[in-house]
Parts: sequence; C-alpha cells; structure tokens
Amino acid sequence: MKLMNAKGTRDMPPKAMILREEITGQLKTAFMRYGFSPLETPIIERQEVLTSKYAGGDEILKEIFLLSDQGKRELGLRYDLTVPMCRFVGMNPQMKMPFKRYQIGRVFRDGPIKLGRYREFWQCDVDIVGSKSMKCEFELLSIVCDTFEGMGLDTIVKVNSRKVMNGLLDSVGIKEDLYQSVILILDKLAKFGAEVVKNELKENGLSQTDADSLIETFTSKIGLDDLSKKMETAEGKEGVAELIELFGYLKDRKQVQLDVSLARGLAYYTGPVFEVFLNKSKIRSAIAGGGRYDTMISSFLSSKQQYPAVGISFGLDVIYDAMKDEYTKESLTQIFVIGIGQDKAALKTAQYFRKNGFNVETDLIGRGPSKNLAYCNQKKIPHVIFIGEDEITSGKLKYKNMDSGKEEFLKKEEILPHLG
Amino acid sequence: MKLMNAKGTRDMPPKAMILREEITGQLKTAFMRYGFSPLETPIIERQEVLTSKYAGGDEILKEIFLLSDQGKRELGLRYDLTVPMCRFVGMNPQMKMPFKRYQIGRVFRDGPIKLGRYREFWQCDVDIVGSKSMKCEFELLSIVCDTFEGMGLDTIVKVNSRKVMNGLLDSVGIKEDLYQSVILILDKLAKFGAEVVKNELKENGLSQTDADSLIETFTSKIGLDDLSKKMETAEGKEGVAELIELFGYLKDRKQVQLDVSLARGLAYYTGPVFEVFLNKSKIRSAIAGGGRYDTMISSFLSSKQQYPAVGISFGLDVIYDAMKDEYTKESLTQIFVIGIGQDKAALKTAQYFRKNGFNVETDLIGRGPSKNLAYCNQKKIPHVIFIGEDEITSGKLKYKNMDSGKEEFLKKEEILPHLG
Repeated sequence: MKLMNAKGTRDMPPKAMILREEITGQLKTAFMRYGFSPLETPIIERQEVLTSKYAGGDEILKEIFLLSDQGKRELGLRYDLTVPMCRFVGMNPQMKMPFKRYQIGRVFRDGPIKLGRYREFWQCDVDIVGSKSMKCEFELLSIVCDTFEGMGLDTIVKVNSRKVMNGLLDSVGIKEDLYQSVILILDKLAKFGAEVVKNELKENGLSQTDADSLIETFTSKIGLDDLSKKMETAEGKEGVAELIELFGYLKDRKQVQLDVSLARGLAYYTGPVFEVFLNKSKIRSAIAGGGRYDTMISSFLSSKQQYPAVGISFGLDVIYDAMKDEYTKESLTQIFVIGIGQDKAALKTAQYFRKNGFNVETDLIGRGPSKNLAYCNQKKIPHVIFIGEDEITSGKLKYKNMDSGKEEFLKKEEILPHLG
Repeated sequence: MKLMNAKGTRDMPPKAMILREEITGQLKTAFMRYGFSPLETPIIERQEVLTSKYAGGDEILKEIFLLSDQGKRELGLRYDLTVPMCRFVGMNPQMKMPFKRYQIGRVFRDGPIKLGRYREFWQCDVDIVGSKSMKCEFELLSIVCDTFEGMGLDTIVKVNSRKVMNGLLDSVGIKEDLYQSVILILDKLAKFGAEVVKNELKENGLSQTDADSLIETFTSKIGLDDLSKKMETAEGKEGVAELIELFGYLKDRKQVQLDVSLARGLAYYTGPVFEVFLNKSKIRSAIAGGGRYDTMISSFLSSKQQYPAVGISFGLDVIYDAMKDEYTKESLTQIFVIGIGQDKAALKTAQYFRKNGFNVETDLIGRGPSKNLAYCNQKKIPHVIFIGEDEITSGKLKYKNMDSGKEEFLKKEEILPHLG
C-alpha cells in the first residue's frame, strides 16, 4: 500500500488545526452575538438537486464529484453550501422568517489543482433569508469588522451595489442587455488594470468613447452625494438610497468604504455587494465576500414565494494563511506536571489543575525530568510543576515559570494566581 | 426538481445543531484539559488505503462509497476515522510520541438503512498512540467521566481486559484458537441472555460442561483479587495487574466498574476495553466505547515499528438522543432589542450589549412590538429591551424580564447585572 493522500486533498496536523479552530471559534462567537444559528446539511446530495438551475455558474457543475452508480442512485458531493441551504429552505416552508443561519463545512470540486486550490476544502457561509432591510447588510458587515478586529487583521471592507452599477452603466449609455457581460469585464479592473479592461470592453463591441468613459466612471473616487446626482433610473436611485442607509448604520466603522468598481462576478447579486481585503499584506485575494441576492432562492426553488436574501462567505484558508506566520502556538497545554517517582501523586496534581480550568499534561512514556522539560520547551508549554518525595512531605510543589525560568516552592492553591 | 435529501442522510436544523454544538464543545474542552490536539484528515481517500488490511472487519469494506471513475482514479469516502489516523501516523514518522489526538468528523457507509442508522454520520474519536502506560487508559476514562458528569448524564463505565478474558477462557479449558470466536459469542450476553449464548457456544462445538462453566465464569460478580487467583497464564496475570493499576488511578470514580463479561467484538483489542452505558434510561446502546489496540497500527502500516495505542469513540448521535428531551433551548439569543420607530438607536443599543458579550437580536422585517414579543416567547429569549422616543429623551431603556414579566426603566449599564 502506498501511504498518500488523494490528490487535491490534505491533512491538517494538530498545529494547523489549533489555529483553524481558533479562527472558526471566533467566527462562531460573532455569529451568535448577532443571533445566527448553526445549520448542517449532508455532504452527499442527489444529483438532481446539485445540477438544478443555479446562478452559481456552469463551471461548477462540471466539477461535481459523482458517486459510483450502485443501485442506480444518482448522487454527488456538494460543491457549495448555498444549494443545500436553498433545498433546506424549500423543504421547510413552515420556517419563520428571517432565517439567520451559518454553516461551516467541507465542499468538493473536481477541478484542476493549483497552488492553494484543493478539491476538498472548507466554506464558511452566513446568510439572512427573508428580509430586504439594510439592517441585514449592517449585521453581516458588523460581523466582518468584529471578527477581523478580534483577529488583529487590518482590513478594508469594500462596498458597492449592483443597482448602483447598473445605474452608472445607464448613465454612460450602455444598453441593459450588456450589463452582465460588462460587469464581468469590469470585475477584472483591480487585478489587471485599466488598459486590459478597456481592450476587452472594445473586443466586446463597445466604442472607444464608451470604454473610456466607463473606465473613468468606475475608477473615479466618487462619494455617495455625487453618485446620487448621477443616477437617472429608479433602480439606481434606490441603490444609492440603500447605500446611504447602510453607511449611516456603519458610521463608526472606518474600514468600510464605498468602491463603485467592485463588481463581484456572480450573476445572481441584486443589491449591495462587498469584499474584504487585507491592508499592507502580501495576500491580495479577498478574505471574505458576499452580497444581496433577492431572486436566486425563488428561482432555484421555482417558487412564487419571495425569498430576499443576503450573505457573506469567509475564506477560511486565506484567513488561515494570513494568520499562520504570526501564530506560534504548538499546543494548547498550559501546565506540564512532572512526577519524580510519584506517578499517582502527579496524576492527582494534574487533576487538581484540570478541575480549576487549565489544560494539563503529564508524562505517559516514562521520560526522565530533563527530557520532559525539553518536551515542554519544544511545545512552548508555559508552566511546569514538579512533584517528588520532598514535595509530598512538605506539601509544597516546585513550580517553574518557563518564560522567566524562575522556580518557587508553593502549595498547589498558591500556584493558581501564577497561571494567568 | 424533487426537493429531498439523499436516502440515509439528514439535515440538522438549528435547534438540533445548537445542542450538538454544545455536546461537541464540552467534548473538545475535556480533550484540551487532558492535552489532546485536534487532527483533521480528508473525507476522500484513495481506495488502496481504505481497503488495505484492517481489523475493522470485512463488513465495513463492502460498504465503502466509491467515487465515479473519472480519469481512472480510484477514490472513496472514509468509513471511519481510524484508518485515516493510521495513514497520518505512517506518513509522519518524525512525529513525537505519544501522539494524543482527537478528531470529530463525518464518515460514510453505504449499508442498509435502519431506524437511527444513517449512511452519513459523525464520529468523535480520541486516541493516544505510542504509550503502553495505563495512565493513558486513566486519561481517556477521566475524560469520559468528566464530560458525562458535565452533561448531567448518569452513567456506568464498564471496564474489562482482553488479556483477562483470554486468561479466563484458559482457566475454563478453552483452546486458544477458539478465543476469538468464543469472545464474539460472549459479546451477545448482555443483549440476548445466557440461554441464547449457551446454545450458540454448543453449536460452535463446545461441550455442555464447557458452555455452562463459561457462562458461570463470565456472569459472576468477580472482584480483582479473586480474578488474580484464577489466572494461570502470564498474559492473564499481566491483564489483572494492569486493571489493578488502572482502578488504583480511578479510585474516586464510582461509576467505573469491572465487568468480566464485557467483550467488545472487534478482533484488534489487546488490553483493557471499555463501554459506557446510561443508568435509568430507555437508551440501552453504549454511548461511548473503546480499548487498547497495541498491534493494529503496525499491522496496518506493515511496519516493524511498534505503535501501542488506546482510544475511545463517543457516540454523538446517541448522546444527542439522550439529551434532546431535556433540552429546551430554541435559540442562543439572550436579548432582543425592540426599537419603536427608532431603528438606528435600536441597532446602537444592540451593539452595546454585543460588545458586553451577549447574544442580541433586533427586528429585521418591520414587525410591530407585539409580534416581536411573540417571537421572543416562541424562541424563549429571556431578556427584552424597548427603545422609543421616551427612552431616548430620558436616557433610560425599558427592560423586560421575560420569565418574571417584570418591567423596569434603567440606564443601559444598569441592565447588565440583570442579564445573569
């Protein structure tokens, strides 16, 4: 047997998992603070559900992992968390709206493997279904700001609106049937620059003048007031009004900024869209992104009922990459108890500190004290407690602070305040 | 499109997930207290790894979900967390021992669907690789006791030893080549009773006398001292000595009890085995179980290196079933802020309490105050805060305790102590 992973998959060893658990823990706490509940759906879905019309794009459908046809069932692995959520909403019509859910789970795409692209990876989605209010966008962007501030990441949160984009396209004189394709091209502005985009616009039939004025419009630092004056369509005016309301709620979040060039390619967005980037970082990809999609769920369910919705997806892998260099934890253990010929007493001492809420290890393979200390150094365990015959006789334990190197003889309850 | 789940899979709606997250949260905390680290491995594994010789039994191998053969890769979905752990250990030979890991993840088995049996379900495994010390068993059983006490579950933890079982079989005169098959039959004692087991033993060639004395031996309430006297083989004596050491560490855990009839069918156990049951409960299945398997990993890896190991698996689904009737939480939200014509002030108030560490919701769909109160009642949200023009003028908010129904006008910082 060859010991290897399937291509495009990877193990997450303990050190990596400790950071990943910290990231998801902070996200879950923020989701709870804003009243979101967890949802879980299976990894295996029926092909009919996976391949039903969905604005996520045809590309994804080609990458579905299918299960072998045992007993003529047609099954595959989910490629995102949005389709299962739509299915869940459709199957639970009695559910009270708004439905505020988060879901953290693996998804599978049988695509080409590139650096940092895996066939099995995690998504973390948070969505509100059933409300058109900009207070939803406020909640999602507040979660974004709270969590990234909590993680010590310096971010810029770019906000735009599909309605405003359409309004701007109208103001430049672009015809409505070209909106979607032009938006897809404009999506490349940040990545490839104005010249590339201009050429592509012309290849798609726009005149030099139109292309020039498009680029000028979408790269100008325009404020909400000026934007308001530019809008001639009802949709555009509504879009600006929504952004004004949203930015009103977000006044004290300086990292949230209007960027009229923010496109986000997906066809299903209908209102505000957002993307989060790191300031002063080598990492250029968005670490979170999302937007409002008021028509997608009804269209997926072929239902007459309206399901306005807005959501954001956190890029767990890229957040991990952004934090991993600064992260030095090798272990969650806070105390190591070394028994010197006193196994039972060492276990008892360990239990005492565990009961007091600390993470404690003891030796399990009969290493000597110096090898145990070397282990503590390697794992960066900050506190070490020795217990031998002397300690048992005196009722005082030898406590060593591994940072300062200082050793003291203390009763076990006297050690507690040293453990911070 | 038919809106339905794949057969043998299920959604976990928010109410169920809130309890499941609480259960896994308590387990993870206990694992950390004892110095275990998280590990994650992919769901997709190579068939060669999945089907390599493994003492988990042939039955499991028939139930592997295979992926369609795109590009002649032979891939399948993992059916347990043990095989991936063995692969990980084999691929990371530099890893320091002991390796203490836990893993909570989905596994997949394409078997018949019965009540409570799913094709996609969760496992929660915690193992120590690289140590023969009974202190490992002590740690695992302490985790068992700590978590179930923490969950308020009244349990009995049955402990036996495969070495002791073999010793008892020897003392009754059973030949060594029959040990495994006899143990598999004895495994049915608790479920089917003495008569059924006796008949099956006779069908397998044992004499009436041997069958009688086997049943007598394995159903007698025998203590460790008497057990010690019965052992004639070196293996049996070692097994008793190990149990004496282990029960010495566990003296203050009254729920941990010797049960010489505890067999646990799996062939790979080599030392202590354990199973956890609920006292005074309709649920008769084990809620956790495990044991020592000192030869399995080397045999799986065809390696000369020794990998003694011991582990325990928690039955997340049956623990969930045991707790769900008593569990009344509908939501994690602690405070609902109702703005009366004061949207921005309501959001600001909500942010204040979020910053103070509480889970807060506000209205997102423009319900009136009475509908919002009805929502709070339904979701059992314990605290409600109203903010209207009067409240803004006076600087005092109307705080309502939903349990007592009492209302008070208080400054926002005066509300904090009421929130428990």
